[in-house]
Amino acid sequence: MSHLVSGPEASEGISTVAVVGTGLIGGSIGLGLRDRGVHVIGLDDDADASAAALDAGAIREVATDLAAVANTVDLVILATPVATIADWVIAALDAGAPAVTDVGSVKGPVVEAVAAARPNDAARYVGGHPMAGSEQSGVGGATANLFAGAMWVLTPTEHTEPHVFARVRTVAGMLGAETVAVTPTQHDALVAMVSHVPQLAATTLMDVAAKSGEEHAMMLRLAAGGFRDMTRIAAGNPLIWPDICVANRDAILSALDHYVAALTEVRRHVAFGERDALLGLLERAREERRSLPSTAVISGPLAEVRVRVPDRPGVLAELTTLAGSMAVNIADIEIAHTIEGTGGVVVLVVPSEQGAALVDALASAGFPSSWSTI
Amino acid sequence: MSHLVSGPEASEGISTVAVVGTGLIGGSIGLGLRDRGVHVIGLDDDADASAAALDAGAIREVATDLAAVANTVDLVILATPVATIADWVIAALDAGAPAVTDVGSVKGPVVEAVAAARPNDAARYVGGHPMAGSEQSGVGGATANLFAGAMWVLTPTEHTEPHVFARVRTVAGMLGAETVAVTPTQHDALVAMVSHVPQLAATTLMDVAAKSGEEHAMMLRLAAGGFRDMTRIAAGNPLIWPDICVANRDAILSALDHYVAALTEVRRHVAFGERDALLGLLERAREERRSLPSTAVISGPLAEVRVRVPDRPGVLAELTTLAGSMAVNIADIEIAHTIEGTGGVVVLVVPSEQGAALVDALASAGFPSSWSTI
Repeated sequence: MSHLVSGPEASEGISTVAVVGTGLIGGSIGLGLRDRGVHVIGLDDDADASAAALDAGAIREVATDLAAVANTVDLVILATPVATIADWVIAALDAGAPAVTDVGSVKGPVVEAVAAARPNDAARYVGGHPMAGSEQSGVGGATANLFAGAMWVLTPTEHTEPHVFARVRTVAGMLGAETVAVTPTQHDALVAMVSHVPQLAATTLMDVAAKSGEEHAMMLRLAAGGFRDMTRIAAGNPLIWPDICVANRDAILSALDHYVAALTEVRRHVAFGERDALLGLLERAREERRSLPSTAVISGPLAEVRVRVPDRPGVLAELTTLAGSMAVNIADIEIAHTIEGTGGVVVLVVPSEQGAALVDALASAGFPSSWSTI
Repeated sequence: MSHLVSGPEASEGISTVAVVGTGLIGGSIGLGLRDRGVHVIGLDDDADASAAALDAGAIREVATDLAAVANTVDLVILATPVATIADWVIAALDAGAPAVTDVGSVKGPVVEAVAAARPNDAARYVGGHPMAGSEQSGVGGATANLFAGAMWVLTPTEHTEPHVFARVRTVAGMLGAETVAVTPTQHDALVAMVSHVPQLAATTLMDVAAKSGEEHAMMLRLAAGGFRDMTRIAAGNPLIWPDICVANRDAILSALDHYVAALTEVRRHVAFGERDALLGLLERAREERRSLPSTAVISGPLAEVRVRVPDRPGVLAELTTLAGSMAVNIADIEIAHTIEGTGGVVVLVVPSEQGAALVDALASAGFPSSWSTI
């Protein structure tokens, strides 16, 4: 298939990337991109960490000053703790980086801080979050295939430059991940429910069980597979969570309130012996659990959805987050401006079974489009 | 080592067992005991289920009337739904079964119901609960090694005949499980915390996440490994849980209240940005999770603890639940009455690292004892 691009900034052809923060995630990005022939420059506040990443082959070169390298690379990826990301993004933009992304677990506050601080340059930044991780930490736990089959969420805004989005999507694809786009607010609500509250719930369950009086040792001996499964993530790196809880406070409180309210309803069912209500809940949850997609890998046939779009800001974010709201993975994206410059065509490559529904939804949103299998 | 026994009822020499309820657990017991040369008679209200168990080799013979076989076997094992167990135990005792046990998830109400209905015969029953299971159900999911390395909890009372306890312990050991003894009340509190509340917590989390508005599909796509781990047990057989929630109501409510109170405290930490409190909790839970015993198998050297006991009821339950309260596994147990009949010696075989502590605790409880490694 042809690759229509939006100008000199081709979505393909990533040759040099700077990674700031060379721990588990940054190191895994480095290893994966190295395998795809990319020259990776690493930078870490902790000189030991960047030296270890160099030793591990996760980076080819150590930088000590982001300003000196940001405008020499195709993309700057920030893999630093959540609380520090906005400042690093601003530094990368100020240093002239052509495209900037991050891999933090919380998006809204970062996207807002960057837009407020650098309203003109924020177009060169798109927030990202690969849904992959490990109980390990540090470059020692890094692997080139950490993101294989994972979902990599991007959070474009109305200001995001299409070629920046396309470039980050390309890098995620080179690492084996699939891309979906949602708004920063949607992202934060989603991860509060599927990641942050589960972490707090597992941690709390482990601690409550361990503190249950003098039968503690026996309790832990009797913990069978279900308890072990439920508390596994409580063994992960604790250091990242206080920042996440502060940054995603409102979404976490909302999801936690839903969870506690639902537990309180369950308590009432137990207290009053409401068997039917309990059975209904258990059966529903079993169906829901069994219908969890087992993997994010797109394996079936693909379709090309061609969307005619006006030449105005925010179109890309509208299209991609509309696809995201339907759980449509974006396998590829190309942006073609018409010669006259009065608008253009965006080509979204998606699983073909979702093509027709996406075209319908686009029509409802005011975007005429067509699709064909490829 | 010598095996001192309490009379004609040797703890060894199990040759015939009746299993009532030939589903996943009953079928797995049958397969495991068949491999040890035991003749297993199966009985199920559902004739298709017992026929399937016969086909699968989990039982050698189908019985249709427990009264006709109960006094011809060494042990009757009840693997029926929790709500039906007490009636089956009473039926087995009335039919003259020499020893009766069950594998239900709740013990207090069953033990109490049997003691109330048959105060004299209850001595031939000891409650049991192997801490093993599977997301599957039916004899099709049964395997001979379901209990290998599992903890098999027994709940003797002051009335339990020592030889009945010993016989059930032997059968658990033949299936590869290790035995611990706790009181029925302790058992119910323990499983509420490590099994019943985790099940309800996983089920509730799955349902809350699935019901989160129109972003449902995207939410489930983004569910990464941690969420999958935490909700795995929500995919299990829902049918057993309403009974368990009714039978173990008080202990579940207590554990659930502890859990919700702890979540409410976590909510407060998040709401007020209390990083130190969050980090402290996360670090504590990580340590607790990492120190969960990885398996119940006793692999180290053993010790023989010889306890001089008076000839009065309840001594066995006192000794075994004292060991249980210290998380001491009982690898073997023998009961020797003295020739004069004025008392006797109980020999407990336990991990040798726990021998000295157990002897101290026994002394505090008024039982002089000694120990030596074997």
